[in-house]
Amino acid sequence: MKYVVGVDLGGTSIKIGLVNSEGKIHKKISVPTNAEKGPKAVIKEIKKGVQLILKGSKKKIEGVGIGAPGTISLKKGTVEYPPNFPGWGRVHLGKILQNQLDKKVFVENDANTAAIGELIFGHGNKFNSFIMITLGTGVGGGIILNRKLYRGESGGAGEIGHISIDYNGKQCNCGSKGCIEAYVGNNYLIEDVKKELMENTESVLIKLADNDLSNITPKLIHDAALLNDEYAINKIKEIGTVLGYGLTSAINVLDIPTVVIGGGVAGFGKLLFDSVENTILERVLTPLKSRITVKHSKLKNEAGIKGAAALVFYKY
Amino acid sequence: MKYVVGVDLGGTSIKIGLVNSEGKIHKKISVPTNAEKGPKAVIKEIKKGVQLILKGSKKKIEGVGIGAPGTISLKKGTVEYPPNFPGWGRVHLGKILQNQLDKKVFVENDANTAAIGELIFGHGNKFNSFIMITLGTGVGGGIILNRKLYRGESGGAGEIGHISIDYNGKQCNCGSKGCIEAYVGNNYLIEDVKKELMENTESVLIKLADNDLSNITPKLIHDAALLNDEYAINKIKEIGTVLGYGLTSAINVLDIPTVVIGGGVAGFGKLLFDSVENTILERVLTPLKSRITVKHSKLKNEAGIKGAAALVFYKY
Repeated sequence: MKYVVGVDLGGTSIKIGLVNSEGKIHKKISVPTNAEKGPKAVIKEIKKGVQLILKGSKKKIEGVGIGAPGTISLKKGTVEYPPNFPGWGRVHLGKILQNQLDKKVFVENDANTAAIGELIFGHGNKFNSFIMITLGTGVGGGIILNRKLYRGESGGAGEIGHISIDYNGKQCNCGSKGCIEAYVGNNYLIEDVKKELMENTESVLIKLADNDLSNITPKLIHDAALLNDEYAINKIKEIGTVLGYGLTSAINVLDIPTVVIGGGVAGFGKLLFDSVENTILERVLTPLKSRITVKHSKLKNEAGIKGAAALVFYKY
Repeated sequence: MKYVVGVDLGGTSIKIGLVNSEGKIHKKISVPTNAEKGPKAVIKEIKKGVQLILKGSKKKIEGVGIGAPGTISLKKGTVEYPPNFPGWGRVHLGKILQNQLDKKVFVENDANTAAIGELIFGHGNKFNSFIMITLGTGVGGGIILNRKLYRGESGGAGEIGHISIDYNGKQCNCGSKGCIEAYVGNNYLIEDVKKELMENTESVLIKLADNDLSNITPKLIHDAALLNDEYAINKIKEIGTVLGYGLTSAINVLDIPTVVIGGGVAGFGKLLFDSVENTILERVLTPLKSRITVKHSKLKNEAGIKGAAALVFYKY
């Protein structure tokens, strides 16, 4: 059995875990990121965290994987302008930590980390190619083809969230219209639900939110659906339909008929997955139909640490 | 200088040419396909045509490349159910011709052939990665990444024409809605123009068509635009906008910011290309904007033979 350390660098906390080659987390810690203190302080936290995780363990470590926000330059493990990290410009995160820890360090962006995590520890045990989509504040994507991450020309590929399903649709923060992120991204979604509840005053969701719409979360929508609330059920189906429309375009272009969905909203469960799958089956090109598969991420809420750990096992 | 034979297998004619490694056509012929006579007769015509092209030439031939419609299985050069070839099921075109001609034979579908042709003899001299889109009856696509054709899981990748720009848009023959092919494919386009001319009776296009709307062709629309016809100009811009919307989704997913447009409608010229480029620039993700390039295919109306010839020079 081989061991690695996975580091999930988030805007509010850094999660660090000791992970074996089967994807089991042996030990994990979480420390505040304190991103506002600047890169040096954050790097120090990561270093301390990794050392803490390794303390007292006799296991030899193959390397350290880091999932980070922002644009990543693979070769040097450079992180550029990560959102929610004020004052960070370009930081040679990988290189610096490699020197300080004297271990191999691999850095990848969040979305690619999720895809590689799924490849190494999740549905990759059965599928060599899949489109990974991570539902959260943003809608991230990562494309795995023949067990390799598809990076595109400059490493920015996989922006499934910015496939537009309606050229005249909802305004997206990216500047375009009708991007699936503008319907499914957490903040957009919650905004829509708040508006729609004005005309769906009978929905149990309002009660679940203690009559305060600012309490609405994706989890609450799911809870309402489990209570058979018609509005919530239709909303989740609608999210699945939107994702299905966008994924159909992606599948037609990529010829990758397997989709793995992770992240918070994926907690919507079978209702969501069936809706995504049925929409794709209705719309995708005929030769692809028989191969369409929509799966829930196997890594679930440990995707961050496990995905980062997987970077060390991934064959670049 | 090396020499190859390129075979452009179309529904109505087979075009065959002797092509050198710089993409110059030394000699070419065209024979009727007579597809209704079945695969054996067509294969015989190809064989005869290749032999005719080589007759009297002392040039050593590196191989024969064939661009064919339908689904192609690369390894055996098998053509499956090509449209407009009644009675064809699965035909081992490559294998049969390789035996009969005693030359290496490479078979690819039309859209991939166009992309490989552009790579070897066209804009590939400058760009290692691009999205090739071929405008004709259908809207074909081929993706070149780092000088390799992106094939996807089963060789069917690149269906740019079936990116939807509007989930509630025009019905496409593929079964989906809002595919860019449903707006830009020749037959769809001509149908739309005929309808729209009912309300644009002042358009010079009607005169150019001798007052008979069944005479409308893409070329006629272009002619009208050159005469400063407002309807025709707006129509061509609109086609560019539709292509731009679809390509934006493709570029965001693929991280390939260079687009090469070929095929008949590409004859619409600068008006079309500017419209495509401006639309992409308005909508594509910010980090990609500075790299966006939209080019007209360099192979133009010889793309069929040259593309097929390029298959022999392409490094598989």
